[in-house]
Amino acid sequence: MSAVQESPVATQQRLKGVFSPVLTPFNADYSPDPDRFAKHCRWLVDQDVGLAVFGTNSEANSLGVAEKRRLLESLLKAGLPAARMMPGTGTCAISETIELTRAAVQAGCGGVLMLPPFYYKGVSDEGLYRAFASVIDAVADSRLRIYLYHIPPVSQVGITRGLVARLLKAYPGTIAGMKDSSGDWSNTSAMLSEFAAQGFDVFCGSESFLLATMRGGGAGCITATGNVNPAAIVNLYKTWKQDGAEDRQKGLDATRGVFAKFNMIAAMKSAIAWKSGREEWKTVRPPLVELNAEQRSALQAALDDVGFEMPNAGKLA
Amino acid sequence: MSAVQESPVATQQRLKGVFSPVLTPFNADYSPDPDRFAKHCRWLVDQDVGLAVFGTNSEANSLGVAEKRRLLESLLKAGLPAARMMPGTGTCAISETIELTRAAVQAGCGGVLMLPPFYYKGVSDEGLYRAFASVIDAVADSRLRIYLYHIPPVSQVGITRGLVARLLKAYPGTIAGMKDSSGDWSNTSAMLSEFAAQGFDVFCGSESFLLATMRGGGAGCITATGNVNPAAIVNLYKTWKQDGAEDRQKGLDATRGVFAKFNMIAAMKSAIAWKSGREEWKTVRPPLVELNAEQRSALQAALDDVGFEMPNAGKLA
Repeated sequence: MSAVQESPVATQQRLKGVFSPVLTPFNADYSPDPDRFAKHCRWLVDQDVGLAVFGTNSEANSLGVAEKRRLLESLLKAGLPAARMMPGTGTCAISETIELTRAAVQAGCGGVLMLPPFYYKGVSDEGLYRAFASVIDAVADSRLRIYLYHIPPVSQVGITRGLVARLLKAYPGTIAGMKDSSGDWSNTSAMLSEFAAQGFDVFCGSESFLLATMRGGGAGCITATGNVNPAAIVNLYKTWKQDGAEDRQKGLDATRGVFAKFNMIAAMKSAIAWKSGREEWKTVRPPLVELNAEQRSALQAALDDVGFEMPNAGKLA
Repeated sequence: MSAVQESPVATQQRLKGVFSPVLTPFNADYSPDPDRFAKHCRWLVDQDVGLAVFGTNSEANSLGVAEKRRLLESLLKAGLPAARMMPGTGTCAISETIELTRAAVQAGCGGVLMLPPFYYKGVSDEGLYRAFASVIDAVADSRLRIYLYHIPPVSQVGITRGLVARLLKAYPGTIAGMKDSSGDWSNTSAMLSEFAAQGFDVFCGSESFLLATMRGGGAGCITATGNVNPAAIVNLYKTWKQDGAEDRQKGLDATRGVFAKFNMIAAMKSAIAWKSGREEWKTVRPPLVELNAEQRSALQAALDDVGFEMPNAGKLA
């Protein structure tokens, strides 16, 4: 059953499938490298992975607004498809969220992934409603499709079902769905059962829940390890109704489990440095720290144990 | 005893006394109002309160980098003294922290108040050290004086004594002190006893700890309620060695206690709207929400009960 086909707001351009919060490559001086960024995006798109650039695993909040705008422009210049992009545009300040969201819409991005303002803790749903509403009203563009970004383990400010219901009622054509990175299946399941029938596209925030999300009527997943294990994740997305899906899910879980033993961002960047031969890939911006030599050896050994491969990783160098 | 007089890095320009994280006045459409901002700063300076503009109570993280730079310039144009300013410049992104810090130093600000990058949680002291070091190295200006901003209840990312020790050793002329908004006197006390003798100026983050901080060799306080109760707080700062200091401390606590029953920012803005007659003062940016009519009546009644006054509040209209 596809809930979306019944929705008044669904269009053929709706974003579906596997997305990756694209890792942002830095030079040794912490400046972003637009060339490797475009190469990585191309490698992902070629494997049918959509581009959730500027997500948590992109170190997006470690980038300034001007840096994000320049990086987005560099991807467009490199010919990457805006329709397959869901850039993160949510910041602490509605003024900057408006600026980034407007830029994404004007670039033709298929959607935006929007964090709530996350500096103040314990804020009310009324305050969060006003934040999202202010952005939507200011951008004032019917092309805008917002995916609400629920990641309380990091942002500490979550998006409740009450808030989703109120936003969907007020902005039915604009509130397009959610990325649920709570890590709590009961929350994802509740979002699916309450809102999927209204055309609200739920993406799980980790491929660990991909099979369950698809069975529950979801739209796909937006997952960190899409950066390094894209083919296998896309394969499960495309074959979730076929025999052996549970085994394919277990395979994904094994690979993810290796990365999850470390800081995921630093571990994925180390893996790309290893497989591509381009050492700068290991660089993360402070306050994150790259894997040390011992951690890196342990990561590589554990990845070898699960048969991890990155075909064509040389293209990322 | 003044620890600072023994310090090799102390200069006569060191910031001392009572500072206020200056409330940012917004218009009804949430745009900042530079005119009222300058009036409020003038009113504070006239009462001997320093200007910790762009702090937590300033809703600084609800402002974009460009907005903060424009507001700082507007204060300088209005003739407010840069030497009495300690703008908040810490953001999630070191690139933006560098930009804001450089602008503050070039404007002649007496210091900057610097949050650690606060999006990622559970980060290491090594990562935070690199973040601060990257900013100091990039700004590369001997005039830079950094006050580390420890406010774990909001930022969720704190500044440990180990981190302070490492930064002080590496950048003795630049790491000037700390604002401790942990609300935990044992932490403030430990910072004082470990670092004050090295010329590290500890400011408590609330006037509730002002007397204790001064007795412990601290430099003063940087406090929200400096926005609305400046004279009495400055009076205790100036007379803390004199008889009756405990009673004066209790008086401050009573007034603060009223504001603390509400969201402090919304309550202080409501109080200024009330006392100045300028209704727009009540406006807060999302995700915060202004006090409703019932809350406002309760606030005003409770402030009347403690004899709260704001002399010359008409100047804020």
